[in-house]
Amino acid sequence: MSTLRYGVAYYDEYMPYERLDADIAMMKAAGINTVRIAESTWSTHEPQNGVFDFTSVDRVLDAMHAAEIAVIVGTPTYAVPTWLVKEHPDVLAVTPKGPGKYGARQIMDITNPAYLFHAERIIRKLISRVCKHPAVIGYQTDNETKHYDTAGENVQLLFVKYMREKFGTLEEINRRFGLDYWSNRINSWEDFPSVVGTINGSLGAEFGRFQRGLVTDFLAWQVALVNEYKQPGQFVTQNFDFEWRGHSYGVQPSVDHFAAAEAFDIAGVDIYHPSQHKLTGTEIAFGGDMARSLKRSNYLVLETQAQAFPHWTPYPGQLRLQAFSHLASGANMVAYWHWHSIHNSIETYWKGLLSHDFQPNPVYNEAVTIGRDFARLSGSLYGLRKKNKVAVMVSNEALSAMEWFKLPDGKNYNDVVRWLYDGLYRMNIECDFIHPGYEGLSGYSLIIVPALYAVSDEALERLNAYVKQGGHAVYTFKSGFADETVKVRTTVQPGIISEACGIGYSLFVTPHEVRLKSGNADISAGDNSVETWMELITPTTAEVLLRYDHPHWGEYAAVTRNCYGQGSATYIGCMTSREMADSILKTAVQEAGLWGADQELAFPLIVKTGINPQNQTVRYYLNYSDLRQSLVYPHGPAVELLSEREIAPKEELELAPWGVAILLEQ
Amino acid sequence: MSTLRYGVAYYDEYMPYERLDADIAMMKAAGINTVRIAESTWSTHEPQNGVFDFTSVDRVLDAMHAAEIAVIVGTPTYAVPTWLVKEHPDVLAVTPKGPGKYGARQIMDITNPAYLFHAERIIRKLISRVCKHPAVIGYQTDNETKHYDTAGENVQLLFVKYMREKFGTLEEINRRFGLDYWSNRINSWEDFPSVVGTINGSLGAEFGRFQRGLVTDFLAWQVALVNEYKQPGQFVTQNFDFEWRGHSYGVQPSVDHFAAAEAFDIAGVDIYHPSQHKLTGTEIAFGGDMARSLKRSNYLVLETQAQAFPHWTPYPGQLRLQAFSHLASGANMVAYWHWHSIHNSIETYWKGLLSHDFQPNPVYNEAVTIGRDFARLSGSLYGLRKKNKVAVMVSNEALSAMEWFKLPDGKNYNDVVRWLYDGLYRMNIECDFIHPGYEGLSGYSLIIVPALYAVSDEALERLNAYVKQGGHAVYTFKSGFADETVKVRTTVQPGIISEACGIGYSLFVTPHEVRLKSGNADISAGDNSVETWMELITPTTAEVLLRYDHPHWGEYAAVTRNCYGQGSATYIGCMTSREMADSILKTAVQEAGLWGADQELAFPLIVKTGINPQNQTVRYYLNYSDLRQSLVYPHGPAVELLSEREIAPKEELELAPWGVAILLEQ
Amino acid sequence: MSTLRYGVAYYDEYMPYERLDADIAMMKAAGINTVRIAESTWSTHEPQNGVFDFTSVDRVLDAMHAAEIAVIVGTPTYAVPTWLVKEHPDVLAVTPKGPGKYGARQIMDITNPAYLFHAERIIRKLISRVCKHPAVIGYQTDNETKHYDTAGENVQLLFVKYMREKFGTLEEINRRFGLDYWSNRINSWEDFPSVVGTINGSLGAEFGRFQRGLVTDFLAWQVALVNEYKQPGQFVTQNFDFEWRGHSYGVQPSVDHFAAAEAFDIAGVDIYHPSQHKLTGTEIAFGGDMARSLKRSNYLVLETQAQAFPHWTPYPGQLRLQAFSHLASGANMVAYWHWHSIHNSIETYWKGLLSHDFQPNPVYNEAVTIGRDFARLSGSLYGLRKKNKVAVMVSNEALSAMEWFKLPDGKNYNDVVRWLYDGLYRMNIECDFIHPGYEGLSGYSLIIVPALYAVSDEALERLNAYVKQGGHAVYTFKSGFADETVKVRTTVQPGIISEACGIGYSLFVTPHEVRLKSGNADISAGDNSVETWMELITPTTAEVLLRYDHPHWGEYAAVTRNCYGQGSATYIGCMTSREMADSILKTAVQEAGLWGADQELAFPLIVKTGINPQNQTVRYYLNYSDLRQSLVYPHGPAVELLSEREIAPKEELELAPWGVAILLEQ
Repeated sequence: MSTLRYGVAYYDEYMPYERLDADIAMMKAAGINTVRIAESTWSTHEPQNGVFDFTSVDRVLDAMHAAEIAVIVGTPTYAVPTWLVKEHPDVLAVTPKGPGKYGARQIMDITNPAYLFHAERIIRKLISRVCKHPAVIGYQTDNETKHYDTAGENVQLLFVKYMREKFGTLEEINRRFGLDYWSNRINSWEDFPSVVGTINGSLGAEFGRFQRGLVTDFLAWQVALVNEYKQPGQFVTQNFDFEWRGHSYGVQPSVDHFAAAEAFDIAGVDIYHPSQHKLTGTEIAFGGDMARSLKRSNYLVLETQAQAFPHWTPYPGQLRLQAFSHLASGANMVAYWHWHSIHNSIETYWKGLLSHDFQPNPVYNEAVTIGRDFARLSGSLYGLRKKNKVAVMVSNEALSAMEWFKLPDGKNYNDVVRWLYDGLYRMNIECDFIHPGYEGLSGYSLIIVPALYAVSDEALERLNAYVKQGGHAVYTFKSGFADETVKVRTTVQPGIISEACGIGYSLFVTPHEVRLKSGNADISAGDNSVETWMELITPTTAEVLLRYDHPHWGEYAAVTRNCYGQGSATYIGCMTSREMADSILKTAVQEAGLWGADQELAFPLIVKTGINPQNQTVRYYLNYSDLRQSLVYPHGPAVELLSEREIAPKEELELAPWGVAILLEQ
Repeated sequence: MSTLRYGVAYYDEYMPYERLDADIAMMKAAGINTVRIAESTWSTHEPQNGVFDFTSVDRVLDAMHAAEIAVIVGTPTYAVPTWLVKEHPDVLAVTPKGPGKYGARQIMDITNPAYLFHAERIIRKLISRVCKHPAVIGYQTDNETKHYDTAGENVQLLFVKYMREKFGTLEEINRRFGLDYWSNRINSWEDFPSVVGTINGSLGAEFGRFQRGLVTDFLAWQVALVNEYKQPGQFVTQNFDFEWRGHSYGVQPSVDHFAAAEAFDIAGVDIYHPSQHKLTGTEIAFGGDMARSLKRSNYLVLETQAQAFPHWTPYPGQLRLQAFSHLASGANMVAYWHWHSIHNSIETYWKGLLSHDFQPNPVYNEAVTIGRDFARLSGSLYGLRKKNKVAVMVSNEALSAMEWFKLPDGKNYNDVVRWLYDGLYRMNIECDFIHPGYEGLSGYSLIIVPALYAVSDEALERLNAYVKQGGHAVYTFKSGFADETVKVRTTVQPGIISEACGIGYSLFVTPHEVRLKSGNADISAGDNSVETWMELITPTTAEVLLRYDHPHWGEYAAVTRNCYGQGSATYIGCMTSREMADSILKTAVQEAGLWGADQELAFPLIVKTGINPQNQTVRYYLNYSDLRQSLVYPHGPAVELLSEREIAPKEELELAPWGVAILLEQ
Repeated sequence: MSTLRYGVAYYDEYMPYERLDADIAMMKAAGINTVRIAESTWSTHEPQNGVFDFTSVDRVLDAMHAAEIAVIVGTPTYAVPTWLVKEHPDVLAVTPKGPGKYGARQIMDITNPAYLFHAERIIRKLISRVCKHPAVIGYQTDNETKHYDTAGENVQLLFVKYMREKFGTLEEINRRFGLDYWSNRINSWEDFPSVVGTINGSLGAEFGRFQRGLVTDFLAWQVALVNEYKQPGQFVTQNFDFEWRGHSYGVQPSVDHFAAAEAFDIAGVDIYHPSQHKLTGTEIAFGGDMARSLKRSNYLVLETQAQAFPHWTPYPGQLRLQAFSHLASGANMVAYWHWHSIHNSIETYWKGLLSHDFQPNPVYNEAVTIGRDFARLSGSLYGLRKKNKVAVMVSNEALSAMEWFKLPDGKNYNDVVRWLYDGLYRMNIECDFIHPGYEGLSGYSLIIVPALYAVSDEALERLNAYVKQGGHAVYTFKSGFADETVKVRTTVQPGIISEACGIGYSLFVTPHEVRLKSGNADISAGDNSVETWMELITPTTAEVLLRYDHPHWGEYAAVTRNCYGQGSATYIGCMTSREMADSILKTAVQEAGLWGADQELAFPLIVKTGINPQNQTVRYYLNYSDLRQSLVYPHGPAVELLSEREIAPKEELELAPWGVAILLEQ
């Protein structure tokens, strides 16, 4: 596995005519060395209950092996066959919208015993059959697994038991969830109403946490099954994905990625992103940073776009830029979904490397150059390690709670996360993601905490201690507001972190024609408007960085910084323009001592850095623009690997539009 | 009760920790002299079927009494406990959207006998327990009661019986409702289809009337129960509310306020309104005029906003302005929803006087000044009486019918009502609301009739007679078009009122680039565009005030005035700009002899006037703007009560931004 | 029947008071010579199961006959009576939204045996009663019949049998529909899942085709019943309608008009269109061309608007212009929906010739002039025949498939059809509609093929042969992409037509700031932007007419023309502005040798031409504008029929705003 992998998802089952040899020949020409198979084709492999047919698996494995292409085998459980649903209609999840209908994938109740029985059997049949095949390097369990909002009576029963297990008594539940409100008290376990109709955000958010737990358990169960067959050297991965806004956007609401990742050997991920004139690389970095953080190690990009949709078909050069950007974030594999475009069903316009005509095309031709470079440079580029000093703390609980208590203008938790994350990206600050339970905070010089709305006392106290001991933290509005059952804290806000932040507030308003006034020349922006949310902050010990410019709210602070112990905490009490957020972040980065030569460069010139297993420093310079860019190379003597040209310090480096340079420091 | 009441809703049940004494101390400091309790906490008071626990009620009553704070006790029936729904799922209303789900308040079938049985028992238990407690001054039945669109089979059965009772025969129903259309005839009572799927607007509107009748009956039933326990000096009220557009907006579609109010001793109301830069006071006046008109007497503001939402948190001064504006409309109580902000559930961001931290804050601090002034000035300000000469005739039937036959651009009945009402407000014309059945029309000099679309012959004939005998009426488009079963009249439109209006029309069109041409210098506006609707009017005896400026419709009249008997009728055949409507209204007000010194002032300077029980004239001058305003005081010698300063006629009076002056004429 | 018919829909059943004699007197005054009755009043004619009452039919027939007004009798089956639904709730269609509710029309399962039994009985009772009445000239079956998305279990069962009949084996179905995808394979007939939840576009589109087949069968069944009673000289027609966008817009998605029309004697149609300043006549031409093409003969306009909605009430002159435009397209009847405006129910604001007051009004008065001219000119204007040399090929299958695979910006198939059709209309090119199965292609000089997305090999090969033999074709993007089961072709696109078009493409993208560059002075437009869709075309033998102006896609062709055999094929690979499309079409029309004097005129001056049964050429000149228009008459000596004035060649002809001239060449 210690080689870069360039891959595709491959579906022999979907082919309109015999293609296997022709496809393999074209793959070899493109340097494809890995394929992923079988994760969506249960009905082909088990056409009737207990009747198995692995013809397509067998022949693909054999042919791939003959061509020295490795195979990742997926368990085919995320799309259920027709016969199973006919026999057991209750395998379909009952959701708040009602009973399910057969057709789509990802519609099952992942707690349903009929589903689990049949899923286990197909997994055992398939994995036991393939595990010793020399082509197989690893497994993917299911695909983009979520809870599909399963909320039927059986799930409700599990939830009630979960609540009793977790909280002990109804008295405790009534108190912590505030169920007296609107006569929602539960005074006997039999009375526990279906949570589907609840208006209690605490209860609703807890149900979300419970549902995410179902996903963690389901995946761990699959991994345990596969592990029974897994051979030395093989791995088990999962294809995690993200909040979807027509493309990968932010923290996944339905899965606790950190918890779910524990069972796996290596994290896998799919990343789809805007393209053409909208390509910025931000989602590649975001998804890569998240995937890398799950196991704190390298990861696999199990799916990303080739041609994909009409609005994603890459401009010349973009496919290369994307591929190297994934490596630069720490990926050891870049695989496309998918090899060939599908001729029927629903994803016909989510095109693969090949169009429906299976002919070479400009995108495939560009892939050929990537495959060649991956093979040639694998030794230098495989296994890139990061030692980031900046972390962004993200939380499913905060996300979920903010779905119940939405920001006024429809923005959600991930908008706040991306507002800051994107700023770091633009200033070439690479970062890890951590969750509130993470205990190694002191490994970081700067921790960014966007909208940590619902969180335990312990986590906040750990953050206070981190600052006290010399760390730097940047909080946004809404952080610390509610506890882990989404009960608003009864102290002056922002609650426990008030101590490190040196501020308090009790009022917050919706901004209307509000601007920011700076008392600090370092923090400014052309666009100093405020949107979405503003807290009316009174500093206790904090310095005011920005104040509101408004006839009535002008006395209040908007952004503050406080020295606390050996460290400092910045608090951003409102949503600013991206430009202003960048200015605040820059100050925090500088204070944390993390501003260097690569930060003087900025988007569209992106720099990503790491150490390869040979302990060499590798720097990727990525041009996310349609214009030629140049820079004065600020580091030590290096070789640019793509051109095999030596680069001296201070030498001017030119990047073509959508171009890449990879500098291996000597 | 003959004292101004300054109040809050108080929920001991929702407290995250013991707060009672601390809260009472803060209430006393703020001049809070009344609290409302218990209207949403059934599940706390009856935790299991037949098990009662009034601990929180008892201790609050005792503590309030000790602090000399009066208490209004609500019947806790608008939010049902979990055990009741588990035992009897059919207490949830079946609506056109299907069966209900437990969670929210206001989801019951108010005709369901299980609900009624348990509601009666908790009412009797609670009210019998508290009625002799010296803290209790009155009761509120249920809260914001509506029919919740209950439309299940049992309700359909009641409706069929109601139809038979009201119309006698199916032949009559088929004829009056036009059921031959699209084969909808009902030729046997057994065939009467559920009205849920009906496309017959007459039938649908009749079902709406029937549903409003359920509300009237349900409230009267609750009042009768409470009256069995009510002690001398105590009152029963209801918290009526309004069409909701994110705030109180217009006539309530689901309740016939006039009919429902009959059972009560005093009208209560909740009024929520835009704030900050959007505060105009219009909804305070509208809701107050409606509440005052229900019993033609003073009323209680049982709920209005303290901090409320982020976009409502008041600017400094606004809370005071709002409080005195309520008094100026005739309120005897101003109570906030609610005392403290809630830490869980759904209304967490609908904040109270106190934030979640229970600390004094700017809004609470402003309330302290209000409480002090209420106490000091109660003798002069309590019991303000109005003798308005202008009435606005509103109708649930017209509203309901216009939901079935919508205006082309999505405007509804209340948009038409507010288009004119707001004009009156801006020119400081105070008014009453009346309904079409009101028989005292001659008490008014001017009656405004917006879009009285569905109405009986009798009501229109009464209006004709009113004009004939010297009254002045202003009708808008669509008035008189259909009868009380929403059958369009078969005569030349506008039907019966054609006689008083001196016009006829048979065509109406949607305006496109149509303007108004004036033949009358008094009526003009910068914005003379026409929108929404235009009737192509031909005068018979009427004078044309405005004509359409359009290549094809230019021959038709748009706005007319007709002398009829001793009075006059103005007919506005199209939706004009607000400015043009104001100009038309001004002319009508002048013709009715109602234009005085206070009408020379105008929004944002609002004037409201009344007579106190000592027969003194009280004038409120309210500055609804962010700018200082001044006026020349046009009345006799007075004392400004807030400053205790004497004001002479013609003296210049200055009002701070969002400021108030209260002039007691000597 | 060989006389122009001027008609109305007449509903004695809906009258609020006795109107028959008065209405007939007004009809006679207006030249109304035909009424349509009975198509929506089942519940009146059969008030209880098996109890019949045809009083209103009888009296209307007798009175009309006495007045020499002919009657078309409709079968009253498209709106079911209350008693039928109470007895047999399953007559209501179960749709993807769930079970139906009584109230609206067109809610039945047209395969339900209870419905069919009762429909047959009322049809037989009614038609047998009226067929020999001398007033009756013909019959309409049902009204605007569709499948109402019926998709319950019984319909699913029929569909499974249809699939087995059509495709033979599941293996064939799995292959052609690509059911391996997402585990959708069906390996046993019992497993066939309800298609309601399917995500397979091929399957979904096939279900659509099956549903359209139900409509064809249902109508043929009704026609067969009526034919048992039909007397010599009587006809059976159906009221076909169109994709509805608040007015008639395009090809009807739910009915295969060509197939369904086969059973009928004459095509009928309803056409509703924008009016007032939005009146262009395009829908009158579109609907007329479609209706005329169904039986390749004259047709009846069974419904069109009189006053209709407030936004449709015609300007003076428009009703005349509309009426003659219908004749100019080949209609032999123009009938209004409806005589009088309805006083109850739902279509109260869809007004008739008469308003609710039954008085003469400006629209009725204009109708009087039309009726007079129809009677006077019937001999010259009845039975206009067309010999169009241009056809537009439209396809329900392409439409349906493009609903499953939507264009990125929400445009649908009909947007593409209308984009080109409207261009032809504006340049006075009259055309027929043909379907892909039509075998007489060689009768046309130019065939326009918009977005023929899903189509059989045979149809495309027929088009290739047509071009080879000297025909001219204009294709748009997406044509030929998928086969008749919506499986994308596996060859280079545009598949089979690549041969005639001389091009290939494998990439397509969403345009962003893309313009067209012309290499051809004849094809240009002020607005040369590209929207919606663009294919990146590489010519093989084709000439490039337009190329993309874009930094990355500039090498690709956008619009091409190819000589192939004796003919030529133009391919439009992107959606252009209307102006650019017109320019491309003009070139194609010229190449086909169809550009003449009337094409030098252009919208708003519309010309329509035909030959009457006396073999005289009749030319309609129609002014679709608010401005007076003039033209130099370019044909031989003629009489203008409305003015009875002789017109010499080259004489200037003036048309009033919304005016009409009808020139009978001598």
